[in-house]
Amino acid sequence: MNSTTFNIEERTALLCAQLAATAVERDKAGGHAAAERELIHDSGLLTLAIPQQYGGLGQDWRTVLRVVRRVAAVDSSLAHLFAFQHLQVASIIFFGSAKQQEELLTRTVQERWFWGNALNPADNRSRAVERDGGIVVSGLKSFCSGARGADRLLVSAHTETGKFLVGAIPADRAGVEIDTDWDAIGQRQTDSGTVRFKDVFIAQDELLLEPGPNSTPYASLRAGLAQSILVNIYLGLAHGAFEAARDYTLTRRRPWVNSDVDSAAHDPYLLQRFAELWLQLRTATVFADTAADQLDVAWKKGGALTAEERGAVAVAVVEAKVLAHRASLDIGTQLFDVAGAGATHAALGLDRFWRNARTHTLHDPLDYKLRDLGNWALNGIYPTPTSYS
Amino acid sequence: MNSTTFNIEERTALLCAQLAATAVERDKAGGHAAAERELIHDSGLLTLAIPQQYGGLGQDWRTVLRVVRRVAAVDSSLAHLFAFQHLQVASIIFFGSAKQQEELLTRTVQERWFWGNALNPADNRSRAVERDGGIVVSGLKSFCSGARGADRLLVSAHTETGKFLVGAIPADRAGVEIDTDWDAIGQRQTDSGTVRFKDVFIAQDELLLEPGPNSTPYASLRAGLAQSILVNIYLGLAHGAFEAARDYTLTRRRPWVNSDVDSAAHDPYLLQRFAELWLQLRTATVFADTAADQLDVAWKKGGALTAEERGAVAVAVVEAKVLAHRASLDIGTQLFDVAGAGATHAALGLDRFWRNARTHTLHDPLDYKLRDLGNWALNGIYPTPTSYS
Amino acid sequence: MNSTTFNIEERTALLCAQLAATAVERDKAGGHAAAERELIHDSGLLTLAIPQQYGGLGQDWRTVLRVVRRVAAVDSSLAHLFAFQHLQVASIIFFGSAKQQEELLTRTVQERWFWGNALNPADNRSRAVERDGGIVVSGLKSFCSGARGADRLLVSAHTETGKFLVGAIPADRAGVEIDTDWDAIGQRQTDSGTVRFKDVFIAQDELLLEPGPNSTPYASLRAGLAQSILVNIYLGLAHGAFEAARDYTLTRRRPWVNSDVDSAAHDPYLLQRFAELWLQLRTATVFADTAADQLDVAWKKGGALTAEERGAVAVAVVEAKVLAHRASLDIGTQLFDVAGAGATHAALGLDRFWRNARTHTLHDPLDYKLRDLGNWALNGIYPTPTSYS
Amino acid sequence: MNSTTFNIEERTALLCAQLAATAVERDKAGGHAAAERELIHDSGLLTLAIPQQYGGLGQDWRTVLRVVRRVAAVDSSLAHLFAFQHLQVASIIFFGSAKQQEELLTRTVQERWFWGNALNPADNRSRAVERDGGIVVSGLKSFCSGARGADRLLVSAHTETGKFLVGAIPADRAGVEIDTDWDAIGQRQTDSGTVRFKDVFIAQDELLLEPGPNSTPYASLRAGLAQSILVNIYLGLAHGAFEAARDYTLTRRRPWVNSDVDSAAHDPYLLQRFAELWLQLRTATVFADTAADQLDVAWKKGGALTAEERGAVAVAVVEAKVLAHRASLDIGTQLFDVAGAGATHAALGLDRFWRNARTHTLHDPLDYKLRDLGNWALNGIYPTPTSYS
Repeated sequence: MNSTTFNIEERTALLCAQLAATAVERDKAGGHAAAERELIHDSGLLTLAIPQQYGGLGQDWRTVLRVVRRVAAVDSSLAHLFAFQHLQVASIIFFGSAKQQEELLTRTVQERWFWGNALNPADNRSRAVERDGGIVVSGLKSFCSGARGADRLLVSAHTETGKFLVGAIPADRAGVEIDTDWDAIGQRQTDSGTVRFKDVFIAQDELLLEPGPNSTPYASLRAGLAQSILVNIYLGLAHGAFEAARDYTLTRRRPWVNSDVDSAAHDPYLLQRFAELWLQLRTATVFADTAADQLDVAWKKGGALTAEERGAVAVAVVEAKVLAHRASLDIGTQLFDVAGAGATHAALGLDRFWRNARTHTLHDPLDYKLRDLGNWALNGIYPTPTSYS
Repeated sequence: MNSTTFNIEERTALLCAQLAATAVERDKAGGHAAAERELIHDSGLLTLAIPQQYGGLGQDWRTVLRVVRRVAAVDSSLAHLFAFQHLQVASIIFFGSAKQQEELLTRTVQERWFWGNALNPADNRSRAVERDGGIVVSGLKSFCSGARGADRLLVSAHTETGKFLVGAIPADRAGVEIDTDWDAIGQRQTDSGTVRFKDVFIAQDELLLEPGPNSTPYASLRAGLAQSILVNIYLGLAHGAFEAARDYTLTRRRPWVNSDVDSAAHDPYLLQRFAELWLQLRTATVFADTAADQLDVAWKKGGALTAEERGAVAVAVVEAKVLAHRASLDIGTQLFDVAGAGATHAALGLDRFWRNARTHTLHDPLDYKLRDLGNWALNGIYPTPTSYS
Repeated sequence: MNSTTFNIEERTALLCAQLAATAVERDKAGGHAAAERELIHDSGLLTLAIPQQYGGLGQDWRTVLRVVRRVAAVDSSLAHLFAFQHLQVASIIFFGSAKQQEELLTRTVQERWFWGNALNPADNRSRAVERDGGIVVSGLKSFCSGARGADRLLVSAHTETGKFLVGAIPADRAGVEIDTDWDAIGQRQTDSGTVRFKDVFIAQDELLLEPGPNSTPYASLRAGLAQSILVNIYLGLAHGAFEAARDYTLTRRRPWVNSDVDSAAHDPYLLQRFAELWLQLRTATVFADTAADQLDVAWKKGGALTAEERGAVAVAVVEAKVLAHRASLDIGTQLFDVAGAGATHAALGLDRFWRNARTHTLHDPLDYKLRDLGNWALNGIYPTPTSYS
Repeated sequence: MNSTTFNIEERTALLCAQLAATAVERDKAGGHAAAERELIHDSGLLTLAIPQQYGGLGQDWRTVLRVVRRVAAVDSSLAHLFAFQHLQVASIIFFGSAKQQEELLTRTVQERWFWGNALNPADNRSRAVERDGGIVVSGLKSFCSGARGADRLLVSAHTETGKFLVGAIPADRAGVEIDTDWDAIGQRQTDSGTVRFKDVFIAQDELLLEPGPNSTPYASLRAGLAQSILVNIYLGLAHGAFEAARDYTLTRRRPWVNSDVDSAAHDPYLLQRFAELWLQLRTATVFADTAADQLDVAWKKGGALTAEERGAVAVAVVEAKVLAHRASLDIGTQLFDVAGAGATHAALGLDRFWRNARTHTLHDPLDYKLRDLGNWALNGIYPTPTSYS
């Protein structure tokens, strides 16, 4: 497969259609989506972000994130797993040496690896101690989306002296136990459960140390990508909810008995509601695209990226995140106001937009995103680089 | 049982505790809550609104609606069935003759009738034709909450000349078929399915004709009561969601990593969010209580109620409805912002507040409630009496 | 004059009519409203809050605050001066000895004193030192509403050891200089300028020391009254703006060219806007009334008032304040959306509602009111007694 | 002067500085800004939109509108007069023949004409009758911004058969009377008064008939430009208010007494407020820029512009208008919440942002902009071409 003949648009459309066919049903069932992970595999889109020199499709982030967004509009759980592949790929580039990049990414393409995440930076219950040419990790990590069913994992742990280490290991490494304990009100098929470490050995050359996590403005740009993935999943949910609202209203909503209009499509209040939803959707979309473009510019600068340039990306991503967060929740709720009581029929599963948005928008608090943005707006200070900003 | 020794407060607390014990699980399962209907029966609270002269508890609406609200805080589906008992009881008083009131309400107490609803005024697919001392009804009604499992039904149908007739019949009357087709994203145990009529005979003395539906300001006050029930179910949901938010935040929420506070209870943004939720809850509560008081005053006037007095109640109810509608949705969504990601654990079932509110608030459109209110505010014109206002 | 024959309603209506006649013009001119202060004097309403035993009208706060609110609807500057008379009267009761109350309030009635304020607790630039049977005050106070033109002043100062002293003195006491420097975008005739103290002697028996400021739950209830005055001025502005919006819309607004309605009174969007304005106005009004009632209950308890009872009043006042703050600004802005472009004609002076509300709502920050309310809602902790809460 | 050596940026900065020096004072005074109109003249910027072939600067709309926006940030009245020059210039291009364009625009450059407006399409009180080689106009037009002090006017009138005619005439044409009756709460120096026509003769070759008003998609694009001017004036006000808020807060706001922060710049609630204001400002700015770009693309298509392409511009302009409308009002109000009570000092004149925004945003109703947008969002129907959409 190569990027010339590979048609991303077609592949995305096919994958979306395949996932859409069973999305409502799988949302109700929850659990592990083994078959749908295979569909993602088969789409060929798992190598979207891998540089062409390693055999990947080498797409820019604007393209990758738009595919994520489109998948999220039909199935935000699988979109999350799909997106996290790209985040792990990028993490290897952000944190790892040239040699590690070459080896791990080449093998990712050749051996069709699906990467999972055991890296949750907000959970410091995994601990590392040094031992003969590597480290041994014990403890656990929560919210490890995509670990189950993964071929490879990115794993993190803190040393006794507080150093934050990230390693890339096979998912079946001895001592790694992946719980099946994820059962939430939304994002039900993200397998975001707990990973337990029982004396897990990670060799020195599996650790991503050059330059290592958050060590440079460029390395810390990973947070910008991680947040951009959230942005585009929220935004995909908003688009999915909006489309559902429009379709249902146009095809099934009847005018209200006292409305004096002959069709719901002419109801003055429904027009107003659609205007407001549209505006929320449009602003969130435009800012997500802009943030992706800025991320691409910064990404291309690599190690030359300055703290200030990195800060400008962080601000653009925060703006997009606040807008997408609100759009996903508001449209997920208001789709029912426009569509009416009939839209609550459980078989339609239209509450999944809100449930998925509600679950995923709690990843990190909106209020502290706004504080970062306010500090920029008032004091001209960029967000402090962390795993979240 | 009599109203002196019967302790409404204790009975309500017991019923709430019983329903709460299984509410999350039953919300997931959906379907018919036969056992819980029995608990309501056993509570003795089904006669709350029946005048004492017929053996009931003869409570005013403020009291009845507060019990409904409390039940709704733990189980808004069962609260709906419970509340509709009182609505049917009141409908007999609003629409029926003195003789019908005496007979039907006395028997309701003595024979422990649980009333169901097949009256949906927005659905005109049930048709009546006159025949030998009565009418024959064919067709169907949707959204017939509580019909399943009921002892008696209020049934409505339009005649060929457009007359709207209401009859009180046994639920097992020949030709009545109660579907089990209710499956929605919320209010999952309200059995709000379809009732089908296959040549159902309703005798003349089963029809509520003196004064009949909406024939007088007093008779049309039924809409005020029906809407007040919605108000108090929404409000109960808002209270339930608020309590859950507070409990979870105080007991389980950790301060955010970058928050500079030692406890979530001191987080400046969480305090602000709780202030806003509190204010929504409080305003909705105060206006619900005020509307209930006005309803009581109007109720006591009986046939002497003027159109203007009826209009004033309608305005108070609209005000309360808009506030309760918004409080239930907003608190149902924002409880997660304050409680955080852990609150999305499916076993907690905290999404049910939003799902129940979202489903039930679509009963009739908020936008047309606001239009009514605006017509009052700008033009001083009371809402036109309909089944909804 | 006595409270039996004195008709508060009539006197208020007359005063409002007198002030309304020139309110727009005086708002433009700004400056000192000597003639209008005389109208207030002549209304007899300056003794509203003075107990009947001292010759006053002895009205409860609900009544006093409603008069304030009505005056504020036509002239919020003069309403402020009028209300501050009652606040100073109450301060003597809250802070002063029985003897001081008797003397000062009796003379207030008999000698027709208009009290002014030089007490701003947020400005600590006035300093007191002890000297021969009293204190000497130097320094200044900003925002001294009503000092200009006053007969008597309440003055405050801090001692070197940080003690907060309040004295009641003649406005022409040697060393008191009242600046005419007040010139703001709103509340233009409140004379809220600076008062300068040049070695002003205050005798020991002019100091209000028994029990003294904020020394007991009852004494600290003064903050509840001060904030309630703000509530009712904001609310009066909201009422005034709403009435202006309705009048202009009904009498002068033409339907928009593309609106498909024959009259602005039937425009679906104007009806919606009026519904929202009405709802804001109504909720603010109901909560202001409730807070006033709670204040009256606490006031009547006098020294027996507990900290908890005082806290409950403080919460009720915060709720009312947030609602009134928002109502005054929102209605002051949106009156133009409903009334249309013609309403911007300067001669109508309809921007004064927003300007007055905008100025006065900055008295103390809304955000910290919400923090207090959140601390109550989440943690069950009453606001800490201060001069603002 | 030519476009190579003419530095737009410098000229704009100088003009803004000149206007800013007296803006507060002139806002208070109102009336005609003869001297400041001369400053605009002297800036050379009046030919910004005139094609280079006629001697103008030939800038695209993005550039022209950004200059308008910058001027509006310091003086939105003069920005309005300045912007209307460009609108009249464009109207000649939209409506007039090649010969008229050449003559009128060349002379505009050479004779330094400042164009005024007597075209208000919502006011149909000016009437035209044909007479010997032209028409005679009687009646009046309201809201004729910039007519006073103009060299030339665009005038409109309806014929008896309802035809809408536009003519370009000298402002001192016999029978033209320009009232000085403009006195509003905002936009006080726009001279938006009444123009009266007493048998005003307009020669045939002064009428813009080829293609004439709204006769083609391209001609009707004038509405898009007119609305874009509003967008950028609102947006300039929002920027001006935001800058004022930031400056005042950083330099003069003290932390609130109970805030537990050492500086207002660290107050958690102020940071949050600045985040929200920033987000409003940013979204409005991005959409204004996007709309300007789309306008430029359409403008360059000239007569080849299709109805659909024209519709797409109209949607972009509506989106931008709603966002800018809200940003200008909200920031104009909330600047005081962040800056605090001291910012109400009249000498600062900070209320002018709200007053100017409030006045100008009533140009045509937001609600009908939203209806247009909703019709697009729900039904995929572009706004019907009118003088407003």
